Amino acid sequence: MTQTQAFDLVFFGGTGDLAMRKLLPAMYYRHRESRDTQGWRIIACGRHAMSREEYINFVNEHCRKFIPQNDYHDNAWFSFTSALDYASIDATDAASFATLGALLGTPGRVRVFYLSTAASLFAPICENLASAGLVTPLSRVVLEKPLGTDLQSSHRINEQVGAIFPERQIFRIDHYLGKETVQNLIALRFGNAIFEPLWNRAWIRDVQITLAEQVGVESRGDYYDRSGALRDMVQNHLLQLLCIVAMEPPSSIDPDAVRDEKLKVLRSLRPFTPEDVRNKIVRGQYRAGAMSGKPVPGYLEEQNIPADSHTETYVALKAELDSWRWARVPFFLRTGKRLAERVAEIVVNFRTLPHAILPSSGGADAANQLVIRLQPDEWVRLYMNVKVPGAEMRVRRVHLDLDFAQTFKIRQWDAYERLLMDVIQDNLTLFMRRDELNAAWRWIDPIHAAWSEQTEAPKLYTAGTWGPTAASALIARDGLSWQEEM
Amino acid sequence: MTQTQAFDLVFFGGTGDLAMRKLLPAMYYRHRESRDTQGWRIIACGRHAMSREEYINFVNEHCRKFIPQNDYHDNAWFSFTSALDYASIDATDAASFATLGALLGTPGRVRVFYLSTAASLFAPICENLASAGLVTPLSRVVLEKPLGTDLQSSHRINEQVGAIFPERQIFRIDHYLGKETVQNLIALRFGNAIFEPLWNRAWIRDVQITLAEQVGVESRGDYYDRSGALRDMVQNHLLQLLCIVAMEPPSSIDPDAVRDEKLKVLRSLRPFTPEDVRNKIVRGQYRAGAMSGKPVPGYLEEQNIPADSHTETYVALKAELDSWRWARVPFFLRTGKRLAERVAEIVVNFRTLPHAILPSSGGADAANQLVIRLQPDEWVRLYMNVKVPGAEMRVRRVHLDLDFAQTFKIRQWDAYERLLMDVIQDNLTLFMRRDELNAAWRWIDPIHAAWSEQTEAPKLYTAGTWGPTAASALIARDGLSWQEEM
Repeated sequence: MTQTQAFDLVFFGGTGDLAMRKLLPAMYYRHRESRDTQGWRIIACGRHAMSREEYINFVNEHCRKFIPQNDYHDNAWFSFTSALDYASIDATDAASFATLGALLGTPGRVRVFYLSTAASLFAPICENLASAGLVTPLSRVVLEKPLGTDLQSSHRINEQVGAIFPERQIFRIDHYLGKETVQNLIALRFGNAIFEPLWNRAWIRDVQITLAEQVGVESRGDYYDRSGALRDMVQNHLLQLLCIVAMEPPSSIDPDAVRDEKLKVLRSLRPFTPEDVRNKIVRGQYRAGAMSGKPVPGYLEEQNIPADSHTETYVALKAELDSWRWARVPFFLRTGKRLAERVAEIVVNFRTLPHAILPSSGGADAANQLVIRLQPDEWVRLYMNVKVPGAEMRVRRVHLDLDFAQTFKIRQWDAYERLLMDVIQDNLTLFMRRDELNAAWRWIDPIHAAWSEQTEAPKLYTAGTWGPTAASALIARDGLSWQEEM
Repeated sequence: MTQTQAFDLVFFGGTGDLAMRKLLPAMYYRHRESRDTQGWRIIACGRHAMSREEYINFVNEHCRKFIPQNDYHDNAWFSFTSALDYASIDATDAASFATLGALLGTPGRVRVFYLSTAASLFAPICENLASAGLVTPLSRVVLEKPLGTDLQSSHRINEQVGAIFPERQIFRIDHYLGKETVQNLIALRFGNAIFEPLWNRAWIRDVQITLAEQVGVESRGDYYDRSGALRDMVQNHLLQLLCIVAMEPPSSIDPDAVRDEKLKVLRSLRPFTPEDVRNKIVRGQYRAGAMSGKPVPGYLEEQNIPADSHTETYVALKAELDSWRWARVPFFLRTGKRLAERVAEIVVNFRTLPHAILPSSGGADAANQLVIRLQPDEWVRLYMNVKVPGAEMRVRRVHLDLDFAQTFKIRQWDAYERLLMDVIQDNLTLFMRRDELNAAWRWIDPIHAAWSEQTEAPKLYTAGTWGPTAASALIARDGLSWQEEM
């Protein structure tokens, strides 16, 4: 890592789940592995009245368990946590921001305000930061999803935040883009001359992106029922991954060069008519079933879910891009809760051989495939056919593995670790620009509109399965099938 | 392996080096691994008067040591050798062929006559086989190189053999084509949709084929001095490998479909003018040096070599193909004796990135590369760039390995094993057709003609090095360099 100048990192939602699970561990790793952390300052903000010592105890209790044994070192942990600060702040009370101001360094230092709170607090926090005089030219604000529930509400939030922070100081985070394998997809595409010639409709048959969860809505029922899978996962994560797969080679990796290309992809997404919504999108909702042999309730039985909710916990859809590169190459996206496995992956299916001359080389089972696995482990696999040893000229599909942990024998950075350092180093490349967000909503909103006109309920699927059978039918209509689990 | 019908396999040169090192071990493996070897019959022919028992003792003494410990099993070896026959035959004495006739099975069985002898004996052996009435419609003849020393002498041999055996029963063997990795190159090219789009001048910068030996001329000085590296290695092995790399996709793997494509490649080789011979070909000759720390004599000090010999023990050349696919893509071929390492490999260098946006992805060091290693071990490696883990978007070249022994966990077939079974199963795909041979000689002859007009001696290189420095200069003129050893 290059030397990083001193900075102040402020976590709003500093006692929250994300801070404990991801943000503080990420900074612990940077602290442990970085030579010079003298200048760092981390200030957690929360509603609870808590002293610095109480917060450190809280972190010891709720965060330390997320550091794997191998990466935990007493000394490093102690020196990390003893440098933490805490400010008790009511986001809607301007006066309370003075506490924070007292803890911040000089205005010449980089300041990062990470808003890991409900979107409804984004505006008040930004306004109060400004009126307390804490927003400097070197200040950056990080916004966690959800950024609204549709184009209109998203627009309002962006206007409010944008009144305080110029766009170039706003970092809209999508942690999937911080994953090492997503970075590697960019490296594969633009760091190798052999992929780009194949990366188009001539040689790629379809792309599948899956973000499958095993968890249900858990304690987030209230939020989730107003959101649903389309807003929660498709509008942001799935579309962002689609952009990385589909974008034209940018002229540089400068933030706006990359984001211009992503924007072009989002704008090339063919809009769904109400009829398309019926034919090309499957919305599902889980019913009671079993996960790992244990019974789990259905969505409608979860806490805070109305008994007649039509909120989707599953979406599968066929996206089409109106561009020369991708014309007639379907992008199948799917995501859901309570699915059979926890897996996030991008599958690029190359076309079958135009003319097979070797036995068993011709079918779809033998087609080349690039699989980028993001979760639970991270690897890239290239499936290709090699000859089976022996007298006959018969081929068999094998995979070449790029297991990054193995190849490089060093700890992989967590997505949040990279993205936090990107913010600190002022690198916007992996963060969504406002026009990208708008374009995504413009494509998503008509789907919600069509659903709200529909009277039929989402297709039910049993918890612990791979979702509604309609999703298989959707992809089968193109003569394809979802990637089988390995 | 598919069931093979009964056959008689006759080795002329049955006490020779090739029979001991390769041919009998190959058949031992087939005997050991094949369910039904009842019908096999192997008859060795040689000049020496020897009984069957004496021959079996000879084989125990001279052949068994070439079976690796792991693959040797007493029972299998005993049952294999006890089925061997021996016929004492003078190739030029028709009467002596009666002995062989008595040992052969019925004319309804496949008969393979493998001529592992000097080319000067090919015609007499074939004629004597015919006059003894041993050539049946199911007979095949296998010819080992060298098939003449130029187009004219090759033509004569082919006419003579062709007077007895129709072309479709003549198997001109080149053991490099029997190697598993060469098979795999065919499987990679025509069994995967992702290689063929890249396999042309747009994406490939150059191809390098190296057949490097550590041995000197040893006891073969007499033969070698009349041959030289161009005839001994380039005309056959190197050009055959070039054909496999360069050929258009055949419409099937039927022998003539494949050989038609290879022929087209040979015919597309741009002929060398005398000036080209000077500029695009380096001929070398080794002088005294050291191999593995031990001093070795120069070529001119070897047994049976005239003190003023200009015979080349090294050739490096730049071949150019006049075709749409390969225009302006140089194929660099090199071979030599007493080189630094024993290695046979094909290196396909893809072009550098047209536009590099990631640090360290742009140079020739970062270009994609496919390496097909034939010797001493067999593997295929694809070099590509992946991201170095960590914050920065920096790439590093790594290789994806296809190690066939590892992937499939079964013993790899030896080249002779496959090729012998191909002969027995009547599969001509990997054997050179007469017109291919002619085309190769047509390209080689002018080089010899130009050399014979030159008064300058071959460039000297020290035994144990990588050949004359002129070879580096040759490739450097295209802004390239020979593949470094791994």
